[in-house]
Amino acid sequence: MRTIDWKEESNSVVLVDQTLLPKEYRIIECKTLSSLCEAIKSLRIRGAPALGVAGGFGIALAAFLSGARDFETIIRDLKIAGKTLKSTRPTAVNLSWGVDRVLKAVSDAFDVQGVREIALREARDIAEEDVVTNKSIGESGAELLKDGDTVLTHCNAGRLACVDWGTALGVVRSAIAEGKKIKVIACETRPLNQGSRITAWELMQDKIPVTLISDSMAGWVMQQGLVDSVLVGADRITQDVVFNKIGTYSLSILAKEHGIPFYVAAPTSTFDFNGWEGSVKIEIRDPDELRFFGSEQLAPKDVEVFNPAFDATPMENITAIITEKGVFYPPFLLDEVLV
Amino acid sequence: MRTIDWKEESNSVVLVDQTLLPKEYRIIECKTLSSLCEAIKSLRIRGAPALGVAGGFGIALAAFLSGARDFETIIRDLKIAGKTLKSTRPTAVNLSWGVDRVLKAVSDAFDVQGVREIALREARDIAEEDVVTNKSIGESGAELLKDGDTVLTHCNAGRLACVDWGTALGVVRSAIAEGKKIKVIACETRPLNQGSRITAWELMQDKIPVTLISDSMAGWVMQQGLVDSVLVGADRITQDVVFNKIGTYSLSILAKEHGIPFYVAAPTSTFDFNGWEGSVKIEIRDPDELRFFGSEQLAPKDVEVFNPAFDATPMENITAIITEKGVFYPPFLLDEVLV
Repeated sequence: MRTIDWKEESNSVVLVDQTLLPKEYRIIECKTLSSLCEAIKSLRIRGAPALGVAGGFGIALAAFLSGARDFETIIRDLKIAGKTLKSTRPTAVNLSWGVDRVLKAVSDAFDVQGVREIALREARDIAEEDVVTNKSIGESGAELLKDGDTVLTHCNAGRLACVDWGTALGVVRSAIAEGKKIKVIACETRPLNQGSRITAWELMQDKIPVTLISDSMAGWVMQQGLVDSVLVGADRITQDVVFNKIGTYSLSILAKEHGIPFYVAAPTSTFDFNGWEGSVKIEIRDPDELRFFGSEQLAPKDVEVFNPAFDATPMENITAIITEKGVFYPPFLLDEVLV
Repeated sequence: MRTIDWKEESNSVVLVDQTLLPKEYRIIECKTLSSLCEAIKSLRIRGAPALGVAGGFGIALAAFLSGARDFETIIRDLKIAGKTLKSTRPTAVNLSWGVDRVLKAVSDAFDVQGVREIALREARDIAEEDVVTNKSIGESGAELLKDGDTVLTHCNAGRLACVDWGTALGVVRSAIAEGKKIKVIACETRPLNQGSRITAWELMQDKIPVTLISDSMAGWVMQQGLVDSVLVGADRITQDVVFNKIGTYSLSILAKEHGIPFYVAAPTSTFDFNGWEGSVKIEIRDPDELRFFGSEQLAPKDVEVFNPAFDATPMENITAIITEKGVFYPPFLLDEVLV
C-alpha cells in the first residue's frame, strides 16, 4: 500500500508505522487528530512530501470529526486543527503547506457537508499529485546518473518519505527504470536510523543494491573513490539554504572536498520563497534519542545532549536541485523555480 | 583502578570491561591467553596505549601459563602467543609494539623463571611508562587550549584508552589542572559508540562538562561556532597519514573547512616509522555491528554493510601532533619526533 492513505469505510487516516521498520511492517489507523499528531511527532510518518499529505488528510480528518452544525463553526474547528498539526514538526514546510492548501480549498464550501467533501477531495489530490510529482522528479534527475554509478544518500528520501516512488530514491528508481545499473550507499542517519531502518529496507524490497555505512564513514568512502554522487531530499528550501536531516551539511562539505556532485531532490512544495536561514527555527529533539536505542542504553542517562533534527546547507555547496519542474543549477533563483 | 593491570595473587590480567559501560562498571579477570584475546577482539579493552599494555601483559600471561621446562621452549611458546595476540587487532600498532618489546626483553633471560620475571617486569614498565607518557602528552598539549575553549573529540582517547589520564582527554585534563575551563563535545562514534558510552562516562566521572552529539552533527556544531579545536587520538601514525577511528578523516575535512585547528595526541609508540598509508591494512569489522545494537535491530538482518574500523587522515589536514616529547608542527618529520 501507499505510505499514507484515506480509509473510506471508517473515515480515518491509515499509514505505515515507520518506527517499527525493518522488524515489522504494520499499518496503523488514526481515527483521531491526536493519534495522527502523535504519529507525526514520533516519526511513525515522516519525510517532507508525506508530511504534506498528512497535513492535508489531517484537516480532512478534523472535518469528519467536527461536531459543528454550521459553516463558521467547522471552519473555526479546522483552523484550530491546522495549528495543532503544524506545531508537531515546526521545521517541515510541507506539513504547513498541506494544511494550508486544504484550509484554503474548504473556504469555497457553503456548509458542513461541503467542507468535508472538499477537504477530503483536496487532501486526496495532494496525495495523487505527490505520486505524479515524484515520478517527474525522478525523470528530471535520472539524466544526472550514469550507468554503473554509486549514489550516496542520507536519511530516507524514498517511497516511505512520500506517498510512493520517492524524491532522491525516486531519481534512483527512474534511472534504473531507464535501464541503468545504480548502486546506493545508505548512511545510517543517527540518531533515529532512518537510513538503516527505512532506506535500506525500502531498497532491498525493490532489489536495488544497497550498502549500509555509519554516518562517520561517508568521508572515507568518498576518499576511497566509491561514490559518484550524493543525492538527498529536503525539508525546506529557502533563498539561501536547504534544510534537511542533520548530517546533510557535513556531507555537502565532504562532497565538495572530493569533487563529487551534491544533488538535492525535492518537490517545489518544499520551497519557502519568503524564508531564509535565520527565519527558520530548527527543531531540537529529545535528548533520549541519543541516550537510548529502544531498550539499549547508549550513553550515561543524564549526559547533556545536543540533538538538532536538521541542519542548513548553503546553496554554494549544492550542484543542482532536482524538482518536478526540471533540474536547476546555480545561481538558484527561487522565483524561476516556482514559475 | 587502572584500565588494565596485573593481578599478583592469581598471575592474571585484570581489566575494565568497556563493552558494559556506561550501564555497568565491571572488572574482568583474564586467566588464559584466549580470554585476553577475546577481550581485545570484542573491545572489552581498546585504545592504542591500553592495547600496548595488553600486548605486554599478554606475553607475561603466556609466560606464566607456559608449561615449558627450558628456555628455548618457553621462548617458542611466547612467539606463538605474540602472533596470536597481534592478530586480534591488526591495525593497532601499539599492540604489536607491546608484544615485541616484552619478547625482546625476555631474550636476556637464561631460564624459564627468568623469562617469567623479565616478562612481567617489562610489561609493568610499559604500564608505568604509559601513565608518565600521558601526563607528558597532557602537559605538552595543554598550552594549545585556551581558558573557555570547547574541544570536539571522537571515539575515546581518554583514561580508558590508556592505563590512566588519557591522550586527547589527557590534554583536556592537564589544561583543566592548570586552571582553565574546558568543555568537551563528544561524537558518539558509531558503530560501537565509544564516544557516548566511554568518553561521556569518563568525563562525567571527573565532572568535566561534556555534551554528546551524533557523528553527523559535527559539521553543524562547527558551523554554529561551538567548537574551538578538534582533538583526537591515533592508532598508528605513518610518514604520510594518521590512522584513527573511522570518522576522524571526515572530522579533519570539516575542521579545515571551518578554520578550526585539528590536533592529534598520541605517544611516540604509536609512530610506525617505516609504514605508509598503503602498507597498512585497515581492519574490517563484523557487519552486525551496524545491523544491531545489543538486542535492538537497526537494519534489515541481511543488508550489505561496509564496516572499516579506521580511516587515514593525511598529514596536511593536521595542525599539530602532541606527543610526550612535545608538540610537532608540519612538516611532520617522523625521525625528528622519534629522536
